[in-house]
Amino acid sequence: MQVGLLGLGTVGSGTVEVLRRNREEIARRAGRDIVVKAASARDLKKKRAVSLDGIELVADPAAIIARPDIDIVVELIGGDTIARELVLKAIAAGKHVVTANKALLAKHGTEIFLAAQKKGVMVAFEGAVAGGIPIIKAIREGLTANRIEWIAGIINGTCNYILSEMRDKGLPFDMVLAEAQRLGYAEADPAFDIEGIDAAHKLTILAAIAFGIPMQFDKAYVEGITRLTAIDIKYAEGLGYRIKLLGIAKRTDKGIELRVHPTLVPSRRLIANVEGVMNAVLVKGDAVGPTLFYGRGAGSEPTASAVVADLVDVTRMATADPEHRVPHLAFRPDRLSDVPILPMEAVESAYYLRLRALDRPGVLADVTRICADLSISIDAIFQKEAGEGEDQVDVVILTHATQEKHVNAAIHRIENLPTIPSPVVRIRLEELL
Amino acid sequence: MQVGLLGLGTVGSGTVEVLRRNREEIARRAGRDIVVKAASARDLKKKRAVSLDGIELVADPAAIIARPDIDIVVELIGGDTIARELVLKAIAAGKHVVTANKALLAKHGTEIFLAAQKKGVMVAFEGAVAGGIPIIKAIREGLTANRIEWIAGIINGTCNYILSEMRDKGLPFDMVLAEAQRLGYAEADPAFDIEGIDAAHKLTILAAIAFGIPMQFDKAYVEGITRLTAIDIKYAEGLGYRIKLLGIAKRTDKGIELRVHPTLVPSRRLIANVEGVMNAVLVKGDAVGPTLFYGRGAGSEPTASAVVADLVDVTRMATADPEHRVPHLAFRPDRLSDVPILPMEAVESAYYLRLRALDRPGVLADVTRICADLSISIDAIFQKEAGEGEDQVDVVILTHATQEKHVNAAIHRIENLPTIPSPVVRIRLEELL
Repeated sequence: MQVGLLGLGTVGSGTVEVLRRNREEIARRAGRDIVVKAASARDLKKKRAVSLDGIELVADPAAIIARPDIDIVVELIGGDTIARELVLKAIAAGKHVVTANKALLAKHGTEIFLAAQKKGVMVAFEGAVAGGIPIIKAIREGLTANRIEWIAGIINGTCNYILSEMRDKGLPFDMVLAEAQRLGYAEADPAFDIEGIDAAHKLTILAAIAFGIPMQFDKAYVEGITRLTAIDIKYAEGLGYRIKLLGIAKRTDKGIELRVHPTLVPSRRLIANVEGVMNAVLVKGDAVGPTLFYGRGAGSEPTASAVVADLVDVTRMATADPEHRVPHLAFRPDRLSDVPILPMEAVESAYYLRLRALDRPGVLADVTRICADLSISIDAIFQKEAGEGEDQVDVVILTHATQEKHVNAAIHRIENLPTIPSPVVRIRLEELL
Repeated sequence: MQVGLLGLGTVGSGTVEVLRRNREEIARRAGRDIVVKAASARDLKKKRAVSLDGIELVADPAAIIARPDIDIVVELIGGDTIARELVLKAIAAGKHVVTANKALLAKHGTEIFLAAQKKGVMVAFEGAVAGGIPIIKAIREGLTANRIEWIAGIINGTCNYILSEMRDKGLPFDMVLAEAQRLGYAEADPAFDIEGIDAAHKLTILAAIAFGIPMQFDKAYVEGITRLTAIDIKYAEGLGYRIKLLGIAKRTDKGIELRVHPTLVPSRRLIANVEGVMNAVLVKGDAVGPTLFYGRGAGSEPTASAVVADLVDVTRMATADPEHRVPHLAFRPDRLSDVPILPMEAVESAYYLRLRALDRPGVLADVTRICADLSISIDAIFQKEAGEGEDQVDVVILTHATQEKHVNAAIHRIENLPTIPSPVVRIRLEELL
């Protein structure tokens, strides 16, 4: 099987290295050799840590797609403009495609899979979600017996590293982000990660294969971790919770929830104990119950592990009747569901609310009255003692599950109280049971 | 696709129920209906919780195999005598087979897979290991890029439940076992579980697909949890460890380690926090690093989840050229490895040793001298204070990794010291890094 790589960056180099190092072992599994014949790179003269012996280097990725001796094109360029054109061109040329490009699939997956289906080629994308964790395969093939109820995933290692450090060391967000950038765990421009967009791309893909719906990235609710403070992490910890950036996709009677946001999770849950850059995806199926899949969500060889697993799968099925292949989105393309994605206002969650209140009698009565009027059921309420000489106290409220619009209304009213001088902090809370 | 069930016990009923409840969703994935046409049961008149509408019930499982309208035979009878005959008969009749029978595969897998290969049929067995966790698929297909270095699994829910309860409540083994039996978490005859045999069956299968070796259950080292005491669990906890019954398969330069035994694991590892009847398998690949797969390891619907996933896979590939199918043992049958299983004496591990010593000067000097003479490097040593009026103290030693034969020799010499009146407790310790 002859492979052409588009892009020789971190994952591309890792793919070359893993295929070379484990060549004999991989061939024992796949039944035939998988060999990289050509690769494209922006800088052809760059020194690389990995040996490129036997690989023809070219500047133009389209030249690789045009080669008749290439069976599989691996797209590792990233982004959703050039990558989209190249992937569609590869499909049109009758090549199978392997990609780790979540932005591309979350935005243009429907178009790409349709083109692939028409042409009878495969597009494999295990590396697009949670790096080396075989989560696409687990959901798409391992849990086929189940009606998936929900998925909750730590699917951005940068955010999980930052939140782990903020909790461990009690440091503020900005300081930890700077350290993460120094260590290479965060990009120079970190917005894509810390604003939750990367997680939303991955969640969009997971929701599609879990529920048999088209990719609908534009309907996902996305809230990052930039406004989280050390004090809320500390309060949460004291109440038996950890704060994680979760991607949550949930099936409800009214539609599908698709949301990325910081979330309080009970500390005793396994997923709450996933630390640093590690990823984990919790999948709840109606037959299997809760399952969790954990591993490295990024990096050269972990992602290459997923890319090469896709290469083995594609190699195995390349000459098979397309009828025998696993559908791209887990469900047959003619049997996708049009169940709607719920607007965030209609989502149900429990909430952690923190108010800074003037230390006056009657504040709690006012706040609890507002909640009661909006039928928000309070699970617990804590007033933190005012510091020496301080006139303000923190009040933390945990609610039972309620619709987001009611909580938004309550926050609006609470912020209008004369005893509440600053904005209410709202973080969603999920028991994940 | 028409299915015949051999056995209508817990898993058989679960399979009927899941296929019925999720029929539409499963068909959307598999592309065709999967229908149970017939089932065999010992007691045809028994009332069952699940509806058997449209399923022909027979007493003789062989009658199901003989039916020309059955495409896939699901063996859920258990044991390795009648089940072996039936599975071989089904293969000879050209039926695909799905089984959740770990004892059968661990002992007769080589014979069964050879017969299936010759006949061109599939034998799928996701339900045989770790119930609903798709661990066979993860290792066999999801991690194909990797040279698997080791696997460590909590793969017996009964033992994990007992150990969790002993730790949580400080209760002795016998009392927790009795409670587990009352709750249905342990069988009336629990030997199979608590002696580690069930875990060893599963480990044998995992090792085969991870390393590309034949099934070699008879070479596995098996030690159960019956001799564990609450005091060792407590001491381990104080040192930052939890005791789990682990199945460990490890590739070394000299051969493959295949062993089931109680193991101290650092408390901060995710797998150390897997509680109650849950299962988890930690897989270390050279490219992906550590990955963990967690879920329910037994029970009606969790195991049915795996059985039905196999049915979907088999349905998808039933008419495909066998060349396109995933090899039963992950590696091509003509390319299995003959690397030997190491005898336990040659295995390397770290150790927790607990000695009850007379409270005399010089005991520690004697013990550490014995270790030094055998080149056993001590990581830490703790002398517990003698209780009021007691003449004996507990000494706990943690060693660095060393060959088991040296530790056995040291224990023999230590037990011969006049100051050591009772046997030394030895529990292996793994950092799992």
